[in-house]
Amino acid sequence: MCLLLFLVHLPNMRIGIMQTAERLTELRRILAEVCNIRNAMSLLHWDQETYMPVKAAPGRGEQLATLASIEHRTFTDPKVGSLLAELGESELSPDDVKLVEVMQYDYDRATKLPEAFVSTFTKETSEALEVWSQARKESNFSIFQPKLERLLDLLKEKAELYGYEESPYDALLEEFEPGMTAGQLRPIFSDLAERQSALVERIVASGNQPDAAWTRAEWDEEAQWKFTLNVLRDIGYDFDAGRQDKSVHPFTTDFGLYDVRVTTRVDPHDLFSALTGSIHEGGHALYEQGQNPGDQRTPLAQGTSLGMHESQSRMWENVIGRSQPFWRHYAPIMRDRFPGRLQNVTAEQMYAAINRVEPSFIRVEADECTYNLHIIIRFEIEVDLMEGRLAVADVPEAWNAKVQSYLGLDVEDDANGCLQDIHWSHGAIGYFPTYALGNLYAAQLFETIEESIPDIWTSVESGQFTPLLEWLRENVHRHGRRKKALEILRDATGKEPSSEPFMRYLEKKYGALYGLSD
Amino acid sequence: MCLLLFLVHLPNMRIGIMQTAERLTELRRILAEVCNIRNAMSLLHWDQETYMPVKAAPGRGEQLATLASIEHRTFTDPKVGSLLAELGESELSPDDVKLVEVMQYDYDRATKLPEAFVSTFTKETSEALEVWSQARKESNFSIFQPKLERLLDLLKEKAELYGYEESPYDALLEEFEPGMTAGQLRPIFSDLAERQSALVERIVASGNQPDAAWTRAEWDEEAQWKFTLNVLRDIGYDFDAGRQDKSVHPFTTDFGLYDVRVTTRVDPHDLFSALTGSIHEGGHALYEQGQNPGDQRTPLAQGTSLGMHESQSRMWENVIGRSQPFWRHYAPIMRDRFPGRLQNVTAEQMYAAINRVEPSFIRVEADECTYNLHIIIRFEIEVDLMEGRLAVADVPEAWNAKVQSYLGLDVEDDANGCLQDIHWSHGAIGYFPTYALGNLYAAQLFETIEESIPDIWTSVESGQFTPLLEWLRENVHRHGRRKKALEILRDATGKEPSSEPFMRYLEKKYGALYGLSD
Repeated sequence: MCLLLFLVHLPNMRIGIMQTAERLTELRRILAEVCNIRNAMSLLHWDQETYMPVKAAPGRGEQLATLASIEHRTFTDPKVGSLLAELGESELSPDDVKLVEVMQYDYDRATKLPEAFVSTFTKETSEALEVWSQARKESNFSIFQPKLERLLDLLKEKAELYGYEESPYDALLEEFEPGMTAGQLRPIFSDLAERQSALVERIVASGNQPDAAWTRAEWDEEAQWKFTLNVLRDIGYDFDAGRQDKSVHPFTTDFGLYDVRVTTRVDPHDLFSALTGSIHEGGHALYEQGQNPGDQRTPLAQGTSLGMHESQSRMWENVIGRSQPFWRHYAPIMRDRFPGRLQNVTAEQMYAAINRVEPSFIRVEADECTYNLHIIIRFEIEVDLMEGRLAVADVPEAWNAKVQSYLGLDVEDDANGCLQDIHWSHGAIGYFPTYALGNLYAAQLFETIEESIPDIWTSVESGQFTPLLEWLRENVHRHGRRKKALEILRDATGKEPSSEPFMRYLEKKYGALYGLSD
Repeated sequence: MCLLLFLVHLPNMRIGIMQTAERLTELRRILAEVCNIRNAMSLLHWDQETYMPVKAAPGRGEQLATLASIEHRTFTDPKVGSLLAELGESELSPDDVKLVEVMQYDYDRATKLPEAFVSTFTKETSEALEVWSQARKESNFSIFQPKLERLLDLLKEKAELYGYEESPYDALLEEFEPGMTAGQLRPIFSDLAERQSALVERIVASGNQPDAAWTRAEWDEEAQWKFTLNVLRDIGYDFDAGRQDKSVHPFTTDFGLYDVRVTTRVDPHDLFSALTGSIHEGGHALYEQGQNPGDQRTPLAQGTSLGMHESQSRMWENVIGRSQPFWRHYAPIMRDRFPGRLQNVTAEQMYAAINRVEPSFIRVEADECTYNLHIIIRFEIEVDLMEGRLAVADVPEAWNAKVQSYLGLDVEDDANGCLQDIHWSHGAIGYFPTYALGNLYAAQLFETIEESIPDIWTSVESGQFTPLLEWLRENVHRHGRRKKALEILRDATGKEPSSEPFMRYLEKKYGALYGLSD
């Protein structure tokens, strides 16, 4: 009633309000269109990785290029810029303030790169990918070197275009972990490197390596597949709003809140790879399925950063899926899935085997204790490259020295050394830290979870994951991009990101597993 | 050399040529964009029918609506109109003349309907679909009647917008079978109705019904599935440029020449339904896989009409897949697929069972002898509705009378009568004749094929389908939309479309099967 009078008596202000409402409607309409195009593109990508016949690849590339260009054109339309500018100066509800803020952020990033730069960058990375494949095949970094030099020049240019305060590296890191900087990461990572290296050394020296040879027998693929579906369902993944398929590399994608799909890879000679792949991707998927329905078809409805995303996948895969209570619950279920195969394997033996620690050359095969070390090697090299302290030609030498220092291994060939990852050929520098941040965020969040849900481990041991999922929904998922990763972390744990919780987690778990004395 | 001098000495003409080339390039660029969007939409549809989780439906609808509107906007841009007008007056290669001609045709159709009309039509058909479902569930036509009346008004308006020479029905038929008219169909269909009815009467009177009860036992779904893959591969379907999946209703779709997918439905209680579904869709798919690669991402690279498309699916499904030589080849293979189940069933018994004739109420379950009768009933009613000789309220009465007259059956309820098909609720009047035309085209083409490839049946009996496929590639597939259906038919057979070849085919095949005297 009050409002009505207000409107009647202040016609000018009323028009002001109407215009803002109309602008918001128009902005949301454009956003919905952009999100719909992005969702269609994601489906095209999903199909490409799962079901697409081989000869369809070039055509699929063309379809994706067309949609990408329409999406970019729609999103970077100057009309969007004007709407945002006008709305930025209008009185808005807190929800709409957030929406305009996030949109403005994305719009600024998207419009900072001139089209000519984007097109050169796309062309160069597409060529670099081919060259990297060849170089890796021949295990010869010098083949890739000129391409990486060219990409590095472009990445430095990109950093200048985006702008930064301290390090050009920050401009790139921002793309994957908004708000994070090399300056913040450096002390955390250097502390981690030292302590994880020391822990790994003690583990190796203990000589208490658990037996894991039995896991590499032949395991029925259908039984493995069904077990992964079983676990996904248990942890709360909604199969009415998603599905699991097979792909060469496991991934999660979504086409909106009600269609979040995961994939896994079934290896007949590895009992655990399909399972850990499924739980990992399931963790990503739960994050997306947990978005606020009111944010649908806006950029608010997605995980806030890659680091926070990895915290979810790694919490489910490692903290939960490689825990003792988890295996106490699933050991008998697994025995039922593989009749006559596991009757002599105890839950403790499964738990020990899935947590075997062994320094190795390959990041994607690394265990929890060595994984971050692989990341830190790449981070240090990337920062040195971007800040001009390291020449591309010297990457293999730097790489091999770091592997020796952190992992105690002698790299024998580039394929198992600095050529192993695809990321640089994509021009993705600044991406790797998000994997390690995922581990740190997960451990830090989980310490709070253990305080908030004192019987969390009793729940897990009885196969009840709802309390955990509800906590994550409430404290992480539903915020989408309304909060940045550091905000989520601070609000949930009351602390800044740190290596402490993760180190406490590793030392407790692996200290017990490997019988290390304090 | 000559050309070079020409260019140098006639600078104005050179510019003229250049402009035409640039216009063609621009037209092809827009076309490629439109085709890429359409292909993306087709993938979204495919996924919706095969793998999409249930809760994703509303989101998928939004994604499709966004892409449809972008596609329409892109294709009907006045720029396209100007390019076409300018190119229509330019000197072009015969290939480009065809491209501009087909594009102009599509552009005119697409721009003839005002946006307001399209939006009303979409809204009304979407509501009509709901109402039809309800009416069919309750088997009560009067529930659907007001909606169908409304749709009929809109369809009459649509016909006026499109324009026509003789009958408003022609304007709608044009959408599915370009160049065909009610006036051409009427004598053919009335001849067919009389002769097929008479044949069915003789079949029923013969009392020589083959045993088909054995086909409705329980048949292993995996074995059925593998058999369909086997047959698809044999007939020449390229699995590197397509795949088969399962869906409630079998269909074919493509996302370009190198990704043409089929689906089928596996019924554990019907030995033949998955197989006939696969061969039928395989026939559609071979047509699309046989397009001219140079026509990719233009509207030339697709089947020329629904009738010609059905001719391909029905030729493979019926003329080949329900032939004696086909079963002589596949009987032993089928016995291997279902060990111990078919050792007492001869090829002749399989052939007889899959060709059992029995008048029934439901079109989609109809055999080769009665199928066209179902179509002719719908055609006559549709033309009478459009030409104002029949009121919507009188449709059930007209329907039931025709079923009695052509099929000798008394319709007992609307659900098995005039409410059985979804098409009218989609506003698709003019669609049904293409099914019957498919049968006629197939038979007419096949008479020529038998003359051109005298040992065609020997090939089929030895499982060799390449000669047939090559003939179809050469005479039908590769032309895409460069030729209209009637042109393809005339060029290949030297004759106008007629009911004669199809009646000769039916009378020979079923005369022998049912022991009818001449």
